[in-house]
Amino acid sequence: MIGGLIGGLSGDAAGNGGGAVSPGPTPAALAPTRRFGDRLAGVFAVQGRLCVGIDPHAFLLADWDLPDTAAGAESFGRTVVAAAAGSVGIVKPQIAFFERFGSRGYVALERVLHDAREAGLLVIADVKRGDLGTSVDAYGAGWLGAGSPLEVDAITVSAYMGLGSLDGLIDLAERSGKGLFVLAATSNPEAAEIQRAIVARGPHAGHSVARTILHQVAEHNTAAAASASIGSIGSIGVVLGATLNLGDFGINTSDVAARGLTPVLAPGFGHQGGNISNLVGLYGGYSKSVIVSESRSVLRAGPARLAESIVRRVAEVGAVRG
Amino acid sequence: MIGGLIGGLSGDAAGNGGGAVSPGPTPAALAPTRRFGDRLAGVFAVQGRLCVGIDPHAFLLADWDLPDTAAGAESFGRTVVAAAAGSVGIVKPQIAFFERFGSRGYVALERVLHDAREAGLLVIADVKRGDLGTSVDAYGAGWLGAGSPLEVDAITVSAYMGLGSLDGLIDLAERSGKGLFVLAATSNPEAAEIQRAIVARGPHAGHSVARTILHQVAEHNTAAAASASIGSIGSIGVVLGATLNLGDFGINTSDVAARGLTPVLAPGFGHQGGNISNLVGLYGGYSKSVIVSESRSVLRAGPARLAESIVRRVAEVGAVRG
Repeated sequence: MIGGLIGGLSGDAAGNGGGAVSPGPTPAALAPTRRFGDRLAGVFAVQGRLCVGIDPHAFLLADWDLPDTAAGAESFGRTVVAAAAGSVGIVKPQIAFFERFGSRGYVALERVLHDAREAGLLVIADVKRGDLGTSVDAYGAGWLGAGSPLEVDAITVSAYMGLGSLDGLIDLAERSGKGLFVLAATSNPEAAEIQRAIVARGPHAGHSVARTILHQVAEHNTAAAASASIGSIGSIGVVLGATLNLGDFGINTSDVAARGLTPVLAPGFGHQGGNISNLVGLYGGYSKSVIVSESRSVLRAGPARLAESIVRRVAEVGAVRG
Repeated sequence: MIGGLIGGLSGDAAGNGGGAVSPGPTPAALAPTRRFGDRLAGVFAVQGRLCVGIDPHAFLLADWDLPDTAAGAESFGRTVVAAAAGSVGIVKPQIAFFERFGSRGYVALERVLHDAREAGLLVIADVKRGDLGTSVDAYGAGWLGAGSPLEVDAITVSAYMGLGSLDGLIDLAERSGKGLFVLAATSNPEAAEIQRAIVARGPHAGHSVARTILHQVAEHNTAAAASASIGSIGSIGVVLGATLNLGDFGINTSDVAARGLTPVLAPGFGHQGGNISNLVGLYGGYSKSVIVSESRSVLRAGPARLAESIVRRVAEVGAVRG
């Protein structure tokens, strides 16, 4: 409770845009805050691990007979939320497809996020933000701050400037019941050059960049679990693509000590070719905390058959033992 | 002319939000498009290399007696643009400080960007975006697309997923007279772990991640200059912090072949301690194409004395031989 209270208030104190939108502590800030990892575990237990993307591509808007405008993106997003509500627990809007319309796109996004909150969906905003100091704190206030118009449950982040550059975000997330997913190993071939590069000095010397980020996040989650004396999933996760051989990145998925109950956001199943039935083969000891993130493979069903498509996919994913 | 036309039109065809705001080719799309590097060289020749940040921090808004709201950020930004116009050529809004207010922050930003365009300022949006495929193309359409409400001259980008993940953005920038600044070596200590990691395979094996990005960008600029048969500054740049010893990243600043007329966005002078009189010592052969980016050291003068503070700093920076 205290953590939630402090989290909410300090979120505002940190220059949270929400302070401007609704002055003073918001109801959210005064409500008890459950850890993101605990809320994720709750979703896994009830609705399962499927996460449906909200990706209003120009071509998907065309397929859905929607205009390639902010209004089209809003209609698309609210339709996905309505179809997801009740049958799936997690949605992941790709913010680039709203941001391309500027402020109108953000108005559309805020309406989609409002619907998702009302529906009780866990929202992971795919923003891949990353910066330093007061700038990264400002991103945190905007996306994780209690009462902010863009408030979501978790965001994806990029750590090219080092995981330490995101400490302010990590603290804010833990204080306010929010989550982060740090890019670690991604599926695109060009990523190998950086993500498989070898750290030259420090405690992770000799290991790949991707493994270093994974282990740093896992260490954080292990420490957080110890201090909270709970054994749930951690609130800070990583992104590990589903079409990869993680061994190529020097990641040993059977390394129990390194797991730290770390949640894994896994894009690449479905459309991109990752095979859900191979979940344990791909993620080993991490597979129990994998979020299966799918967009086109579900969205291509179109608005009329989307709900049916989601229900079917929830069942297929639910049948897989993690 | 043709390049500009194709750039503008394909920007819209790529699902550019601008298409929604002003249907069909915009005047910008039909105007001849000068390469970003050429426009940057023109600014260097006339107004010099200083770039003034537009950073509406909560604490700066308080110092300026402005509310910590989107309206406060808009007033702050428009005041900086008015003070900069005529005495400096480049401004760099930090988008996190607008995004924290959600759609209202983006409305404020669009007004600031409109003022900056009217004033003929070169605008580098500090967004540090990075993603894959259609998502990164959507960011490109939003920030670099002709007629988009967020259209600027250049953006900062992050390549944790490899420089190749940004190919779509690089092509769009070259086609449409825009620029990019790719994070290479940043000033925060936690960055060393990743940016000084050693690439394990491929043509850059044995070199640091930061040097690899710098050389890949330089190779692009060398090829672009050859195909355009011009010898101006390139349109794709890098971010190299001004408080670093680039040798620690394995970067040899006297390596003529590697420079490729690559522009360098250099934060860290002024407030963060970088010494402008040591420009050549810091950047060696790159120093002629360094953009000196300063925010707090200029902005702390306050609204009343900002114009005077900018004029003084332009003179100080102009007195330095690159």
